[in-house]
Amino acid sequence: MGFPLTVGYIQCRPAFNDPEQTMLDLDRLLDRAASADLLVLPELCNSGYHFQNPEEARQSAEPVEDSRFLRFLQDKCRQHRFYLATGFNELEGDCLYNTAVLLGPEGYVGRYRKLHLFLNEKSFFQPGNLGLPVFDLGGYTVGLLVCFDWMFPEVWRILALKGADVICHPSNLVLPGFAQQAIPVHAMTGRVFVVTANRIGSEKELTFTGQSLIAGPRGEVLARGSETDPEVGIEGLDLDQARDKMITSRNHLVKDRRPVEYGFLVE
Amino acid sequence: MGFPLTVGYIQCRPAFNDPEQTMLDLDRLLDRAASADLLVLPELCNSGYHFQNPEEARQSAEPVEDSRFLRFLQDKCRQHRFYLATGFNELEGDCLYNTAVLLGPEGYVGRYRKLHLFLNEKSFFQPGNLGLPVFDLGGYTVGLLVCFDWMFPEVWRILALKGADVICHPSNLVLPGFAQQAIPVHAMTGRVFVVTANRIGSEKELTFTGQSLIAGPRGEVLARGSETDPEVGIEGLDLDQARDKMITSRNHLVKDRRPVEYGFLVE
Repeated sequence: MGFPLTVGYIQCRPAFNDPEQTMLDLDRLLDRAASADLLVLPELCNSGYHFQNPEEARQSAEPVEDSRFLRFLQDKCRQHRFYLATGFNELEGDCLYNTAVLLGPEGYVGRYRKLHLFLNEKSFFQPGNLGLPVFDLGGYTVGLLVCFDWMFPEVWRILALKGADVICHPSNLVLPGFAQQAIPVHAMTGRVFVVTANRIGSEKELTFTGQSLIAGPRGEVLARGSETDPEVGIEGLDLDQARDKMITSRNHLVKDRRPVEYGFLVE
Repeated sequence: MGFPLTVGYIQCRPAFNDPEQTMLDLDRLLDRAASADLLVLPELCNSGYHFQNPEEARQSAEPVEDSRFLRFLQDKCRQHRFYLATGFNELEGDCLYNTAVLLGPEGYVGRYRKLHLFLNEKSFFQPGNLGLPVFDLGGYTVGLLVCFDWMFPEVWRILALKGADVICHPSNLVLPGFAQQAIPVHAMTGRVFVVTANRIGSEKELTFTGQSLIAGPRGEVLARGSETDPEVGIEGLDLDQARDKMITSRNHLVKDRRPVEYGFLVE
């Protein structure tokens, strides 16, 4: 029986400050993923990543409320009846955020702003200020993280404790293999599914590492992309596996926690 | 230069409620590990693990303050000038604790009581009530965890935030491979070294999985034991690798945390 859900990653090469080209590329890839219920695209999918100055960082940024890029994706969600989490270079007032936006057949669902900015992102983006929300998509719960957040076990833990069944993780990973090693373990210790959509290609001296992945609650890798090619990875999940938090007949992943003895984690 | 430290695990088969036999076995193994600065022994090393009733659980339990088993280990610490963390079936008043005891050349250093009891351990042991202490061993800092604690990312995080350079992890692991997959990632995300000493052999229907390991701050496995044999694993570490918490030139493992946005973790 279970609770079946088909998820997928779109591993692609966002065109640097050329969202029209990116939409052309995505159009074809998203049609190939039409069978999915929930899809994940890479980080900063509307702008590319490796900005040399604030002007470059701002060039393709858009407000969530008025974005040609998001309207394109919303049309795809409506057409194929899927939900989609995309990395998004978000303009709000004078500020940029490295955001993940969740869209669905009925339009905008919610957003998360990256809490842990990597390296030179600190020169261009404001750190996230919306906490770690989760979203009910009609019977199942989705959390959002962006790329380098993977290094901070707190965020995985909090999303699992908030009841996330699936964590969508748009990424532009450049460190070789570390995230891909860690993510299945975060899935295991939280008993959740994780869909990491990583980008491919290079921008100046940066090479992105691909190997997008879908990880399961037993620490297994259910699907993995290549290092270099545009790819759609689709996998059917049974979400009941994420909801069964009994590790043994007498051990519960949440109830066995000992917060009083942990003493602190928020300071 | 760095801060050199030689650590090791003793992978052995504690004799079920026969600490005299266990001490005979350990005598030889500990002499082989004489070059180490810090050693780790398996969980419940003085008693074995798979008790059928409270009487069996209690049969070899001893108070930390008056233990023939710990006196034997203290003599070894004095003789070889090393520190040693051992799993210990601890009797205090009428209660048993699944404890890790840290000993050194000058005697008793401290203890930790397992916070997360596994399966039928809940029938015999009280859950830990001493929090998550760390110990300064003269220039470096050690934290203690016991076996199933590995499943709870909170404890790894807290020990890293408290400044642990090395986490000693006496274990009696029975689930195949999960802990061995997760521990290097806990080492990576905390930038610490971990020494997991797992036991071998069987007790009734339980088979322990061996594969003791030493993991490093880049998620690497520096040493790994076999699944079935008594073994001493020794590795020279540079503790400066655990103290350098700069992930990139602009990212610090501790300072980049966003506790206000995490919002909660202690409730």
